Amino acid sequence: MKTVEARCRAAREAQPTLSIADTTTKNRILAQIATLLEERTEAICVENQKDLDAADQAGLSSALRDRLLLSPDRIAGIARGVREIALAPDPIGRMEGLSLRPNGLRVGRMRIPLGVVAMIFESRPNVVIDAGALCLKSGNAVILKGGKEAAYSNAILAEVLADAVGLEGLPRELVVLLTDRGQVEALLEQDRFVDLVIPRGGEGLVRYVTQTSRIPVVQHYKGVCHVYVDESADLERAVAITLNAKVQRPGVCNAAETLLVHRSVAEALLPGLVQTLQAHQVEVRGCPETQALAQGVVPATKADWDAEYLDLILSVRVVSDMDAAIAHIQAHGSDHTEAIITRDYSRANAFVARIPSSAVVVNASTRFNDGGQLGLGAEIGISTSRLHAFGPMGLEELTAKKWVVYGDGQIRT
Amino acid sequence: MKTVEARCRAAREAQPTLSIADTTTKNRILAQIATLLEERTEAICVENQKDLDAADQAGLSSALRDRLLLSPDRIAGIARGVREIALAPDPIGRMEGLSLRPNGLRVGRMRIPLGVVAMIFESRPNVVIDAGALCLKSGNAVILKGGKEAAYSNAILAEVLADAVGLEGLPRELVVLLTDRGQVEALLEQDRFVDLVIPRGGEGLVRYVTQTSRIPVVQHYKGVCHVYVDESADLERAVAITLNAKVQRPGVCNAAETLLVHRSVAEALLPGLVQTLQAHQVEVRGCPETQALAQGVVPATKADWDAEYLDLILSVRVVSDMDAAIAHIQAHGSDHTEAIITRDYSRANAFVARIPSSAVVVNASTRFNDGGQLGLGAEIGISTSRLHAFGPMGLEELTAKKWVVYGDGQIRT
Repeated sequence: MKTVEARCRAAREAQPTLSIADTTTKNRILAQIATLLEERTEAICVENQKDLDAADQAGLSSALRDRLLLSPDRIAGIARGVREIALAPDPIGRMEGLSLRPNGLRVGRMRIPLGVVAMIFESRPNVVIDAGALCLKSGNAVILKGGKEAAYSNAILAEVLADAVGLEGLPRELVVLLTDRGQVEALLEQDRFVDLVIPRGGEGLVRYVTQTSRIPVVQHYKGVCHVYVDESADLERAVAITLNAKVQRPGVCNAAETLLVHRSVAEALLPGLVQTLQAHQVEVRGCPETQALAQGVVPATKADWDAEYLDLILSVRVVSDMDAAIAHIQAHGSDHTEAIITRDYSRANAFVARIPSSAVVVNASTRFNDGGQLGLGAEIGISTSRLHAFGPMGLEELTAKKWVVYGDGQIRT
Repeated sequence: MKTVEARCRAAREAQPTLSIADTTTKNRILAQIATLLEERTEAICVENQKDLDAADQAGLSSALRDRLLLSPDRIAGIARGVREIALAPDPIGRMEGLSLRPNGLRVGRMRIPLGVVAMIFESRPNVVIDAGALCLKSGNAVILKGGKEAAYSNAILAEVLADAVGLEGLPRELVVLLTDRGQVEALLEQDRFVDLVIPRGGEGLVRYVTQTSRIPVVQHYKGVCHVYVDESADLERAVAITLNAKVQRPGVCNAAETLLVHRSVAEALLPGLVQTLQAHQVEVRGCPETQALAQGVVPATKADWDAEYLDLILSVRVVSDMDAAIAHIQAHGSDHTEAIITRDYSRANAFVARIPSSAVVVNASTRFNDGGQLGLGAEIGISTSRLHAFGPMGLEELTAKKWVVYGDGQIRT
């Protein structure tokens, strides 16, 4: 077994071959991945069953077990996703802002791969293929470190990636799967060979990686997303958007966790909204004013304002004005997604200007902070770091831009 | 004296006021900085003299002493630079790629400040003003940590920044100067309050910051820049460009350190070129072939191929072809700047495609990898990290982009 360092070095040394591969070659690799997924569906399910059996023995929750599951349907869906990435435009080699300088130099910025991208993730084995396809299409070698609960599934999926790369004549070293938890520390020291680490999982994982890594990290921290209902809001719209932001898919990072309501509409909005949420199995935890206005509201504790429930729970707070709402978001938000519901033009603009989250939404659901919904295509995750990428990371966010200078003998004087 | 944490926290808490300040206000701050520099020229020179006296006592080299020096002329030049930054377009609030999604959402990306930017630098006190002006114009609070050899000069220049901010009614906490070396470690732990660290100085400093920091780092490593003369090169042009890349300003990171020469033109090029370089006081250190072809060539050792001389020294190596030149650059380069001299269209394109440095130059001097020369205006440094910014960092590279979603009641289905 090679060391982590040796495998990272091999990925780095193989990467230039992918860097200069043309789009047709990269798309053929992706087509191979999709085909192999279909051809090996049965074998993948067999390996996946080993992980599921271990999960059952370990007494994992049904939600966690469901995350692990790879059914033939799901595998077909993953293959479809890979074919969609193949259809997406290739960012590599694209020149931006080519312009003529006064001395006749033509200068512009060309998109190039980052190089070697490492992804450290938990549970969902589909990440192997999703992240692998995005990295390969954008010319990057990829190092995957999944959780041990999905070890068998991850292994057979990583083999699909490496086989597809090999079948198209590129080095299999472009795909690295690490399986031991003990390898993470060694991985995070490979700043000579790895250009970016993306941790995707619980807050503990992200914090550990950020504090340990010598390699640049793009963080995907928690999404404590807020909906603020302004005094001028259309209240029917406020109900529909809040409901959608909470219940349409509560387990994801762009679901709303806290509702902030301007005091002047609290009485008109909250009794009905709370009832509607409860009818959708949402547990509402509220401030004293919310408790006084609506039935069956659990008292919110201090911890509720910082909680990412990822579940059918919503905390609700009545605020005196938009400044108080923004102050609450500044104190408790995670720079992920905040929405305002308002009919007031100036308020909408002020909210957009003042909230420095990865997505600021006016009169729509927080659930739109998503690569597909924003037009990026597939995403490798949603960054809550302002550096390099902020918000959904698609193909373009897996690239860098170098300057190209076309001269004709120019020197500096 | 407040702790480093308290000062970083205060900068973070003050930053939103600058984030929403309009361009006119920010430009007024910059105009104040320039005016105060002029008004306080005498006092600045007095403080600077204390640093110069200490340098003389410590027996600093004349080159290092010259870096410290702030003459009235130089102070006037710094003030001019600040006024130029005031004239540059303000990136903050600019919306990019606003487009309509099929569901009627309008989505785009708006430039916002990074937040709090820390700069750790050595020697040159002008960095206080240059970095301060760039950070303030781009809406960022700024934390400055200079070397103790410039302590007096840095202190009076940081006071100029804070006074200018205060005179325009913004909190002085937006500017923080740290003076103790011991404060660096505490600074690098403030990931809650500081968004970016830029180390600018020797390789040791950059490596220490990268390995220690919990805050994202944009590295400004050394520039081991190469000029490759292809077999099809115009040899007169090769001489002019090599000479310019080496001697026009040898102490900067975009100066050339190594010349690679295609074997088929070595005999025609090297005798004359080496002579020309030597006539400009350049010490030439060469491979055995170079030594055989030209007079007075010092034998190059292994260490020479990795050296950033920042001095009138050039290492020269004859290579068998462009592949060998690229392999040499991959093994010894620092991803900074590489140039090819060629008349061959395909070679030029292949070199551009295959070299992943922050600037790839065709038929021109490496010295053009510079914010001003590339049309960015002033720069805070030249990044050799691919993440976030690659190449010169101007105002735009001190910003992030958030998504803005303008809806009309849209929810996800």
